[in-house]
Amino acid sequence: MSYTHIQQAAYEANMQLPKLGLVLFTFGNVSAADRGLGVFAIKPSGVPYDELSPDKMVIVDFDGNTVQGSLRPSSDTKTHAVLYKYWEGIGGIVHSHSTYATAWAQSQRDIPIFGTTHADHNTVDIPCAPPMSDEMIKGNYEYETGFQIMNCFNERKLDYREVEMVLVGNHAPFTWGKTPEKAVYNSAVLESVAQMAYLTEQINGNAPRLKDALIKKHYERKHGPDSYYGQ
Amino acid sequence: MSYTHIQQAAYEANMQLPKLGLVLFTFGNVSAADRGLGVFAIKPSGVPYDELSPDKMVIVDFDGNTVQGSLRPSSDTKTHAVLYKYWEGIGGIVHSHSTYATAWAQSQRDIPIFGTTHADHNTVDIPCAPPMSDEMIKGNYEYETGFQIMNCFNERKLDYREVEMVLVGNHAPFTWGKTPEKAVYNSAVLESVAQMAYLTEQINGNAPRLKDALIKKHYERKHGPDSYYGQ
Amino acid sequence: MSYTHIQQAAYEANMQLPKLGLVLFTFGNVSAADRGLGVFAIKPSGVPYDELSPDKMVIVDFDGNTVQGSLRPSSDTKTHAVLYKYWEGIGGIVHSHSTYATAWAQSQRDIPIFGTTHADHNTVDIPCAPPMSDEMIKGNYEYETGFQIMNCFNERKLDYREVEMVLVGNHAPFTWGKTPEKAVYNSAVLESVAQMAYLTEQINGNAPRLKDALIKKHYERKHGPDSYYGQ
Amino acid sequence: MSYTHIQQAAYEANMQLPKLGLVLFTFGNVSAADRGLGVFAIKPSGVPYDELSPDKMVIVDFDGNTVQGSLRPSSDTKTHAVLYKYWEGIGGIVHSHSTYATAWAQSQRDIPIFGTTHADHNTVDIPCAPPMSDEMIKGNYEYETGFQIMNCFNERKLDYREVEMVLVGNHAPFTWGKTPEKAVYNSAVLESVAQMAYLTEQINGNAPRLKDALIKKHYERKHGPDSYYGQ
Repeated sequence: MSYTHIQQAAYEANMQLPKLGLVLFTFGNVSAADRGLGVFAIKPSGVPYDELSPDKMVIVDFDGNTVQGSLRPSSDTKTHAVLYKYWEGIGGIVHSHSTYATAWAQSQRDIPIFGTTHADHNTVDIPCAPPMSDEMIKGNYEYETGFQIMNCFNERKLDYREVEMVLVGNHAPFTWGKTPEKAVYNSAVLESVAQMAYLTEQINGNAPRLKDALIKKHYERKHGPDSYYGQ
Repeated sequence: MSYTHIQQAAYEANMQLPKLGLVLFTFGNVSAADRGLGVFAIKPSGVPYDELSPDKMVIVDFDGNTVQGSLRPSSDTKTHAVLYKYWEGIGGIVHSHSTYATAWAQSQRDIPIFGTTHADHNTVDIPCAPPMSDEMIKGNYEYETGFQIMNCFNERKLDYREVEMVLVGNHAPFTWGKTPEKAVYNSAVLESVAQMAYLTEQINGNAPRLKDALIKKHYERKHGPDSYYGQ
Repeated sequence: MSYTHIQQAAYEANMQLPKLGLVLFTFGNVSAADRGLGVFAIKPSGVPYDELSPDKMVIVDFDGNTVQGSLRPSSDTKTHAVLYKYWEGIGGIVHSHSTYATAWAQSQRDIPIFGTTHADHNTVDIPCAPPMSDEMIKGNYEYETGFQIMNCFNERKLDYREVEMVLVGNHAPFTWGKTPEKAVYNSAVLESVAQMAYLTEQINGNAPRLKDALIKKHYERKHGPDSYYGQ
Repeated sequence: MSYTHIQQAAYEANMQLPKLGLVLFTFGNVSAADRGLGVFAIKPSGVPYDELSPDKMVIVDFDGNTVQGSLRPSSDTKTHAVLYKYWEGIGGIVHSHSTYATAWAQSQRDIPIFGTTHADHNTVDIPCAPPMSDEMIKGNYEYETGFQIMNCFNERKLDYREVEMVLVGNHAPFTWGKTPEKAVYNSAVLESVAQMAYLTEQINGNAPRLKDALIKKHYERKHGPDSYYGQ
């Protein structure tokens, strides 16, 4: 079985993280899935970005078992596995500790939708899942992190195909998408939206959320049936 | 009819946006007009900056109709068209989501004139046009955005030849100028002034506006009949 | 008479400003004096940094008269001239609109001495000269700016040889030194100290000034008779 | 006696500081110890980073006496010496004035543990040692700085092998580790954690400290007996 296509995709997507200023040292990881094969390629744990190569990407199945690779996969691998297993439409996942998104996660607050930059990508506040219970933390922690994210989406009736990003309270962001490239794109968008929302509240402590008509308009011109953004 | 001169000008001006740190991904666009021909060249929608070339710039008339080009023009094209149609002195327009200017737009506040960096370019607070009515948003949105900007200038009795920048509430900035280069310059100035004004209020919550004598002095030494800045 | 030595020195010092992130476009200038000849070389007004060359530096005497050069000197030239004329120990001057220092100037506040980074260079809060009177502004503005700076130092009994930087209220910083290199160094130090002081107040609204013993210790280990910093 | 191995190590570690954005000009220094020889190599005082070379690193013993080298060692050398003398497990030390960590030091506040980025490296708030007494400052200042750091750790019952970083009140951070590379790594982690903690408090003035279960989990997955981070 050849996995070089997802190893290459995961490698290229991982290398985007430092270029986009989203990681310090090894504080982030990207995976790329092949749904037909039921596996994903993910960054090895703790390996610096400038020492990565496609063949170092570890192949893991959707239950978190290593299928191929001599290196240990990212310590967050089980979170990726759970999301791939239950959210069938996604082909790439990013975890980072990008500065502004992580600050919101540490603040345990959703990121309010303040403008069209946000609405171009989401129609709702970016959700911050609450910190996990002590039982979940002491148990299969990274596995439970995946369920904490999905529980948050279920409780709020959010669709992972529309909202491709989440903050895990006290921890940091996860983003995803149909492809690893899209997941990386979403991480950069999230960081930018997080910085702008922070500044907005500093400039106007009573800044109102974006009005519904603008949320709808901006989201639909990019994502609706009559979208007219892009080629 | 040859449009290569405005395609080249639009291309070069667009490429300045990432160099100046004013755009993430494709979140911005510049156009360059030829008033004799009654058209402008504008960035194609959603195309990454590193894939741009002069021939990809789309030619559009002042009613927003595509005249030449196989790619779809920027989704903000109609806003550009309206401004060119009614403001006859401008030859270039920039739209960006630059961080600090967008944060002020999201805050729905004018940027107060706090210092000479601001007064070197404007004599007034940088206006923030209010968010549009639901009717305007649901209608011909980008076209109405142009009118929202012009209405704001009319109500405040501002002259677009003196104030070459505006924030659209909850959205982001637009700047313009006699040339696309000047419009890009104005976007960078706006971002810098927006950052300084934010910091000024953080440092002194009661910081006073710049006194009238300094506003007049700095503006006139750059733009008055007896200006003595530059060559 | 040959001025190439100060033209070269002024050129090199000016080129440090963009490298150190202290200027946007042309918003800054450096001059280099030859006290024996009674002149200084200064950046021409409004010329972009990447178009500068040593021979474009304009030679001006300490009364502000151009002695040599076909380009118009910086619009701030008279401020430089006044400082050179009355402060005989300085050989270089910088004016910039660097972000954090300018934000403090716009806030019309001295920068409090909060730590040893500050005390390594100054024993006092960095002074913010008040905005000028309307009469001074409407008169010989740039010339009066020089006197406003010196008046501030006289009133506070500061010595320009010990405190080599000032904020001009609502405007921006000036720094100086025995050489243009030292003046540029001081501009970068000021910007760093200004950013740290801003952050310090955000983190602790009641942060105390540095205690006198530490101010004295740090200043003297770099500048006192028994200094032991450097080679 | 050959010291080239620690000179090379100290040189390489020092050169990481400007690359990681942790120093302006010469405001920082790294040392590398050889415990067998009872000496360390340290940056010479006030020499710009781009003029450094391995042979310029000064060799000093654990009492602060220069053993080899024609240049004067860093003015902070005695602080390094004291820490090496009493903390036998460390092989590298960094002192910097990095922006966010220094702002916390100036604020005289510990950095609260707000998230997993922090818990991946420490289980406690990052301690801020109080400013020294006037007697200590007027005495053997840099030597006493080392004792001030160790007193802080003793009073709080912290282990320098677990907490490899400290803020010295009103001054700036020190970090250390088994190797100079690890000490530099810790300085960059500290700066990132300091920035995130600052932003967290701005976004939520009542942000709670990280819960104990998460502190334990994240620290132990990197540093505990059953750690599973890295290779």
